[in-house]
Amino acid sequence: MNGEWKMYIQLALDRMDINQAIQITQQVEEYIDWIEVGTSLIKEFGIKSIEAIKRAFPSKMIVADTKTMDNAVYECNLCFEAGADVMTVMGVAPLMTVEACLKEASIRGKKVMIDLLNTNESVRQQLLQYKEAIFCIHVSKDEQEFAQQHKNFNFAHFHRPTGCNLAVAGGISAATMKQIQPLHPSIVIIGSAITRAEHPERAARELRQLVRNRGIDDASN
Amino acid sequence: MNGEWKMYIQLALDRMDINQAIQITQQVEEYIDWIEVGTSLIKEFGIKSIEAIKRAFPSKMIVADTKTMDNAVYECNLCFEAGADVMTVMGVAPLMTVEACLKEASIRGKKVMIDLLNTNESVRQQLLQYKEAIFCIHVSKDEQEFAQQHKNFNFAHFHRPTGCNLAVAGGISAATMKQIQPLHPSIVIIGSAITRAEHPERAARELRQLVRNRGIDDASN
Repeated sequence: MNGEWKMYIQLALDRMDINQAIQITQQVEEYIDWIEVGTSLIKEFGIKSIEAIKRAFPSKMIVADTKTMDNAVYECNLCFEAGADVMTVMGVAPLMTVEACLKEASIRGKKVMIDLLNTNESVRQQLLQYKEAIFCIHVSKDEQEFAQQHKNFNFAHFHRPTGCNLAVAGGISAATMKQIQPLHPSIVIIGSAITRAEHPERAARELRQLVRNRGIDDASN
Repeated sequence: MNGEWKMYIQLALDRMDINQAIQITQQVEEYIDWIEVGTSLIKEFGIKSIEAIKRAFPSKMIVADTKTMDNAVYECNLCFEAGADVMTVMGVAPLMTVEACLKEASIRGKKVMIDLLNTNESVRQQLLQYKEAIFCIHVSKDEQEFAQQHKNFNFAHFHRPTGCNLAVAGGISAATMKQIQPLHPSIVIIGSAITRAEHPERAARELRQLVRNRGIDDASN
């Protein structure tokens, strides 16, 4: 039964240039659902990274990982005008920034993903009032790379918030995907397990098979 | 006596294009000390906004307002290689991200400004261990624009952390500068009071006079 929920794969594009991002996405396009223009692409190349990727993949949902902390309406305007379907705001931002993003997205028929990175339980409870948002449980790159136990990081200490649309992100691969099973996410965000794979297409195909055909509860069988 | 501490003006460039940023800075160059490439310029135009502004003003300290939440070494690398002298990291980021920024800056002889936006007292106490950092007390644009009492926002509920290098930011103008006096900042960050002024040069000259010659405690006299 745990394998029955529907799950999308969001491909996260980070630490590469725009052409590389497009080329790698072309290789794996049929196996992924949403495309994330990573924070590093936005900060390195600006909003044109979003425009270029939407232009290359007009039928895909494009997530702009703006990690907004302030200046909500301006940043929403930038990324939605550039073709993004979803933008991200940090859960640790002031609530009025989160609310301004939700309002702006709603006006435009777009979505907001609230990144729960480094939020505490009390803040998460406040954020869960925003039923229209997607919530992202996120183990950050720095947490993965620098935490002493980074080889053993997992999602076990997160509780699934009820009644919300959930994404998970943080070094997820075929090998570690079983860890996210108890969270029943709607969206699994995968970056380097595809983009840094020796054979990105094969990696994406395997992950897709794992997600769609077998259910991730069978991942280690 | 309160007027005697030394204070720098950091000009914050936001919500404009790179050419406008350079043109306005040329008008006020002699009255300001540090130049901040705002988050909106970085997200809209990418890292080339930092390169262009450093190239135009090579003798000024350039602050890249990256508002880093993750991917610390990569973002430090991007902005320092582009010519930034200071980068910003969010105090609400995981501590290992703050520490990674400080380490990377130290290796390169650069500085980190820790943005205290939306931090609580407990987090601020943890952050104050980083004596080499500049701390920025920050009332965000959204807090200014959307808070019900935005006309009355002030810095009165902030306590000055002791023994640290302090910056203040958030809608500061000649009229409101007196509010920051009790904080004794080393750096006062000013954006729209100069960049949106009818006469930017005159506005910058007046602010400079206020800061350097009279001390901000006399601002309302």
